[in-house]
Amino acid sequence: MKYSKLFGKTIKDSPKDEPSVNARLLIQAGFIRKEVAGVYNFLPLGLRVLNKISNIIREEMNNTGAQELLLVSLQNKTNWEKTGRWNSFDALFKVKSRYDFEYALGPTHEEVLVPLVNNFVNSYRDLPLKLYQIQNKFRDEARPKAGLLRGREFLMKDLYSFHESEEDLMKYYTLMKKVYKKTFSRLGLDAIETVASGGTFSEFSHEYQVVCESGEDEIIYCPGGDFSENVEIIENPEKLENKQCDLGHGPLKRVKVVEVGNIFPLMDKFSKPFNLTYKDKDGKDQYVSMGCYGIGISRVMGVIVEVHHDDRGIIWPENVAPYQVHLIHLGGVHLSTSEAYNKLVKARVEVLYDDRKNVSAGQKFADADLIGIPVRLVVSEKTGEKIDPAFGGVEWKERDKDKTEVIPIDQAIGRLKTG
Amino acid sequence: MKYSKLFGKTIKDSPKDEPSVNARLLIQAGFIRKEVAGVYNFLPLGLRVLNKISNIIREEMNNTGAQELLLVSLQNKTNWEKTGRWNSFDALFKVKSRYDFEYALGPTHEEVLVPLVNNFVNSYRDLPLKLYQIQNKFRDEARPKAGLLRGREFLMKDLYSFHESEEDLMKYYTLMKKVYKKTFSRLGLDAIETVASGGTFSEFSHEYQVVCESGEDEIIYCPGGDFSENVEIIENPEKLENKQCDLGHGPLKRVKVVEVGNIFPLMDKFSKPFNLTYKDKDGKDQYVSMGCYGIGISRVMGVIVEVHHDDRGIIWPENVAPYQVHLIHLGGVHLSTSEAYNKLVKARVEVLYDDRKNVSAGQKFADADLIGIPVRLVVSEKTGEKIDPAFGGVEWKERDKDKTEVIPIDQAIGRLKTG
Repeated sequence: MKYSKLFGKTIKDSPKDEPSVNARLLIQAGFIRKEVAGVYNFLPLGLRVLNKISNIIREEMNNTGAQELLLVSLQNKTNWEKTGRWNSFDALFKVKSRYDFEYALGPTHEEVLVPLVNNFVNSYRDLPLKLYQIQNKFRDEARPKAGLLRGREFLMKDLYSFHESEEDLMKYYTLMKKVYKKTFSRLGLDAIETVASGGTFSEFSHEYQVVCESGEDEIIYCPGGDFSENVEIIENPEKLENKQCDLGHGPLKRVKVVEVGNIFPLMDKFSKPFNLTYKDKDGKDQYVSMGCYGIGISRVMGVIVEVHHDDRGIIWPENVAPYQVHLIHLGGVHLSTSEAYNKLVKARVEVLYDDRKNVSAGQKFADADLIGIPVRLVVSEKTGEKIDPAFGGVEWKERDKDKTEVIPIDQAIGRLKTG
Repeated sequence: MKYSKLFGKTIKDSPKDEPSVNARLLIQAGFIRKEVAGVYNFLPLGLRVLNKISNIIREEMNNTGAQELLLVSLQNKTNWEKTGRWNSFDALFKVKSRYDFEYALGPTHEEVLVPLVNNFVNSYRDLPLKLYQIQNKFRDEARPKAGLLRGREFLMKDLYSFHESEEDLMKYYTLMKKVYKKTFSRLGLDAIETVASGGTFSEFSHEYQVVCESGEDEIIYCPGGDFSENVEIIENPEKLENKQCDLGHGPLKRVKVVEVGNIFPLMDKFSKPFNLTYKDKDGKDQYVSMGCYGIGISRVMGVIVEVHHDDRGIIWPENVAPYQVHLIHLGGVHLSTSEAYNKLVKARVEVLYDDRKNVSAGQKFADADLIGIPVRLVVSEKTGEKIDPAFGGVEWKERDKDKTEVIPIDQAIGRLKTG
């Protein structure tokens, strides 16, 4: 992609109406743009990151045998009345039709999926079943001031599993714990598995929490990895804080965190109101045991920016960067830069090419740092001379390091293909 | 994918509350399921078709130099007031927040994109610009009884182009006419380019209409391809009907059609209310000329079913079929079928494998016909004997033909890879 053509360029000043780091950087760098509080448009760079995050999650969910589908946003009010949530779900947007009836504007999808699954599950032979979607959710949140961390419209992966027994549910639940750790790690996040309240859903739940100064949750955890609890379920958090971990990993820490995922053993919480049962091997009706497993995809994008940035801009982890490499043209050897661009494109390296004329080297470097693509390649007279005057080498610099080196373009491509 | 595991199996009876062919067949075959009138959930098979359609459209839009982004559903009321559409857009859903303000629930995206583009366009150097998205739209339609043909929630590709001049706009508009013809042809649809009213948007528009008994529009057209107009803009349609075409292609025909796409030369219709201007080469402010270009993706899925089916079920065109091949296991040679399945998967052929036991051959064939995958492969004792008792051949049958033949599996794979 040529930067001169890209829709959504960097802007000079950081937006003044955004208190959060993620929204400030993402808007300034041209990834998102606010529509209204808590609702953001994704520009081409932003959509690329969203898609990369989604595809990693999709891959991990598919690997557990889950199937992807796509559920509706305009939901049947009757089913929300059956679960009692039509009136009790505070953040529910209700949409009135001009034809005198109402919909729930999907904040979550138990009320859609459980009746749907009921059409297809009759016998134990139809179980287990794991279904997920990647889809927009709508919630009338109280204080949407944290950019992508708390939106009124946001992209989510929600997976629901259906089992014969609590035992089978917990087997999958345990697998999902591992899958979640791996997924967040691929996304460049160190997510701490934390025991939390199940709220009105279940006895307990597990949250995946990322340490982050702007987070709204607090956990007490052992850096050795053997303990983490949400402060809201701890009776005397003050007493637990700084206590030595039983396994000798040192004192427990109390930190602010932001939740990027959660998993709930729902058991029969939703099977009961919808009478979701199956016939067991003896022909007896049993309630299906359910679990649900969420990851906030647009929120993950915000959290990545919160934890991976410096004074100059964003530092995208490789797996989710909008492009693999940011190629910059400087000075009078435009032709060679085009050749480098064409070589990269041909090698199927994802490249953003800053081909702008009449923009200073300083501005181009500042924009590259702000946008945060992991590798910067510069072609200039200097690099041309150093390697091969006819074609030229390129200056390789990684976003999170200071070192630069001049190498032939083919070597750069080799690194990018194996990296 | 093994059919025994697939979520969304065929059901015995066609749904009684669906008057439309597309909804009846798609529900019976396990592609979609109704939530409420005009709102459908997409099961795994249905999502695969939606994605195939989307990807073909995406490819064609990208080829014109357009960039994909993702706009919001919860839209700023102020911008809808600026265009006067907050009160005049009949099918607009208005969403109330509990915090005493309202959103428009996106039925279209001019009110979002034009102000957004205004942030980035200053000079003629920033033009032209072509932006599109693939995203859900919401419209409070009057009679959503036609399945996927008219939904209250539906998937759409909407592209908007921005130009220096009417001339440059019309150049892209003309290109898009060709691109639309090609796109629909890749989707298996014969779409007739039809001159239509521009409504409140523009002087005229072009619609892409597919001949279909259940369509709500009517056109008069020349089968030779040199004339087509929507009846609504023809003064005396009765006089035009059956008139000889000027180019000697025979009498004009009047037929019922369903619209799968439309394109509008918006000119400055939306640039004016948002003051979207640019500085021309002489430094003078000029209004940006706009066009918009829609394709109803979920509607396309419905129309494909309306025109490609028989008494036994759906007949998917190759490019949009959920799988390339439907493999059926019959009788006692399950092992060979598994081998065939593994070979197909290894060759990256998209295969749906009906591995069910205790289901009759008749039922399996009926399901395959209902689901409508273009090629059916059967492995049975019969096919095993004919080719190679150790491994067996497969019986090849195309959904839209009666002929069957037994061929080695490798030959079948070869055909599927080149087809």
